[in-house]
Amino acid sequence: MITVATIKDIAEKLGVSQSTVSKGLNGASDISEELRAEVLETAVAMGYKKPGTKKKSDRKLIVFVENMAYMNEDDFGYDIILGFKQIAYKEHYAVDVIETSRNFQSACTYDSYMMEHGYSGSFLIGYAFDDPWMEQFKTSVTPTVLLDNFVKKNPKVGYIGTDNAEAIDMAITHLIKLGHEKIAFLDGSKDSLVSDQRMAAYLDSMIKHNLHVDPNMAIYSYFVADAAKYHVGKLLGLGATAIVCGNDLIAQGVLEAVVNEGLRVPDDVSVIGFDDIPLAAELKPSLTTIRQNRTELGKSAYFILKAIINDIPMSRSLLRPQLVVRDSTAEARPRMVRAHANDGDSVLNVNPSLYTNILSKERISV
Amino acid sequence: MITVATIKDIAEKLGVSQSTVSKGLNGASDISEELRAEVLETAVAMGYKKPGTKKKSDRKLIVFVENMAYMNEDDFGYDIILGFKQIAYKEHYAVDVIETSRNFQSACTYDSYMMEHGYSGSFLIGYAFDDPWMEQFKTSVTPTVLLDNFVKKNPKVGYIGTDNAEAIDMAITHLIKLGHEKIAFLDGSKDSLVSDQRMAAYLDSMIKHNLHVDPNMAIYSYFVADAAKYHVGKLLGLGATAIVCGNDLIAQGVLEAVVNEGLRVPDDVSVIGFDDIPLAAELKPSLTTIRQNRTELGKSAYFILKAIINDIPMSRSLLRPQLVVRDSTAEARPRMVRAHANDGDSVLNVNPSLYTNILSKERISV
Repeated sequence: MITVATIKDIAEKLGVSQSTVSKGLNGASDISEELRAEVLETAVAMGYKKPGTKKKSDRKLIVFVENMAYMNEDDFGYDIILGFKQIAYKEHYAVDVIETSRNFQSACTYDSYMMEHGYSGSFLIGYAFDDPWMEQFKTSVTPTVLLDNFVKKNPKVGYIGTDNAEAIDMAITHLIKLGHEKIAFLDGSKDSLVSDQRMAAYLDSMIKHNLHVDPNMAIYSYFVADAAKYHVGKLLGLGATAIVCGNDLIAQGVLEAVVNEGLRVPDDVSVIGFDDIPLAAELKPSLTTIRQNRTELGKSAYFILKAIINDIPMSRSLLRPQLVVRDSTAEARPRMVRAHANDGDSVLNVNPSLYTNILSKERISV
Repeated sequence: MITVATIKDIAEKLGVSQSTVSKGLNGASDISEELRAEVLETAVAMGYKKPGTKKKSDRKLIVFVENMAYMNEDDFGYDIILGFKQIAYKEHYAVDVIETSRNFQSACTYDSYMMEHGYSGSFLIGYAFDDPWMEQFKTSVTPTVLLDNFVKKNPKVGYIGTDNAEAIDMAITHLIKLGHEKIAFLDGSKDSLVSDQRMAAYLDSMIKHNLHVDPNMAIYSYFVADAAKYHVGKLLGLGATAIVCGNDLIAQGVLEAVVNEGLRVPDDVSVIGFDDIPLAAELKPSLTTIRQNRTELGKSAYFILKAIINDIPMSRSLLRPQLVVRDSTAEARPRMVRAHANDGDSVLNVNPSLYTNILSKERISV
């Protein structure tokens, strides 16, 4: 049995008049901010649903963006939002896009915000493990799709992303065919699900192909070009002939850092990016990378959100990646390991099960 | 650059006339079966595409069923096909349903069959690892969605299923809340991806909850009621107070077998099924089970197939399961382990990493 709370129920629960509740629900300005918040949160907790709007033109969705560039065509988020909007508009949904901050998230409850503004559902991009709203998604009652984030057991919250395991394995397989064995992985930041998935995929793929895994060659950094300079010298010192990167920006930094070390890409070192943002094709040399089709990610996010709105509990959906081979990868040419960077002791023989255990916490099996 | 083969190209390649090729592609009866097969396979290999049909009424999809009951409302496949058809009809696709056999699969090439009959895409249910067509899906060029089967790296072949890891964890968590610790798992047959996923999920969940894993209590059988009688006596002898089953049919057999052992469900032993087919609610006692929403699986399969037809490379999509609590589970009541079944030696302390390694081959991380 489903109990549907009415405005009267909420008024009784709070000991206020029904008109006060209506004002709170509709964002009227003549009640206090505290009371309005209390009305909204009580309404959400009691399972109140605003009556469906009659006009199609009133249907609206929202895209929340946290810590991700999306304003310009070259930005990672641009095509994702474009793809989402393209399909949503076709189906007569209006789409708002707003940027959030941690302060914003802390200041308002996610479900209350959605109810107050009358959104049917949302698509969130760029959120990290420690974003304040992440905890709320575990129990949210609003149809929600997260890019690259997974919440267990909540049928209202779905996950869309690219298959990172398949993606990284494509990169490693490409390098192995070119004769590379000393393949390093310079990942993005530790606070994101995709970083963990890509790191796990790198280790799995190396082990699967019987390549030696050197823990000093599997490094978390940050998803920015500047991250590269702190690590490339060391990786080259360890004898890496190829560096796979957590995204294209890191790869951009690696291209520069390799040159600064007096070596050439791809003659001495092959470099592979991740994402295939427009920049990748413009770099010198043009970047071999793993393409995430961002327009399709956005479109798929819409379809999954629509399914959840229609009570089809989509949990997670992944798109196929695509390897785009350009000029930054070439046949391996073994290099002498330079003395300054490594005396050999730091190259450990790693027990694969160690990695399995370390990383299993973040794994989600199909 | 995409090269599109024409009828002329195929004719030249085979050294036959263009009209012979046309006959082969259109299933005319006045050429030999061998030549027709050769024309079709060459056409597929060369990337030939039949010109798009003009009329919407000509658009058609097919559901292939292998080794799965689907004719009656109570059958597992019934609602899946129904859900698929409901949405497909809405979008003006005709849907054919045919049952295949291993002989049928061996006798014709999948892609050729699809091209010859003019299907835009297919949805396949009930296929096992060793079905002849499974190998062909790795390289198929036809938009295809597999229920409960995953093919790597082929952007034309998607996977739809239920989140088995979350499902089994819901069952184990429910039993733990009722005080059970000796929880057995009687799985389906070894030749299916879902069996492997559910077995891995059982082991993961037990380990996660710090419960002892006894390898003699984690058993593969078959997805039929009769499978239970060969195992239940032994599981009870090992002290199991709860048995989670790979599907509802196995659970049906377990209910009967427990009674035959002189014990009662749920007083002495709790039993949980999987699927929630209509039978589950009719059993005595009614069966606590994990619901797969089959209509929604069918609908989702359609959406994914549609995405793949539109060149959106959906890889895999999972739906949320739902725990349906009925009368076959109750608080644990520890039982004396009977002497005949077990002398204690067969209860091993298992190293969790052993299982991780055994099962990792079948895992697909998100």
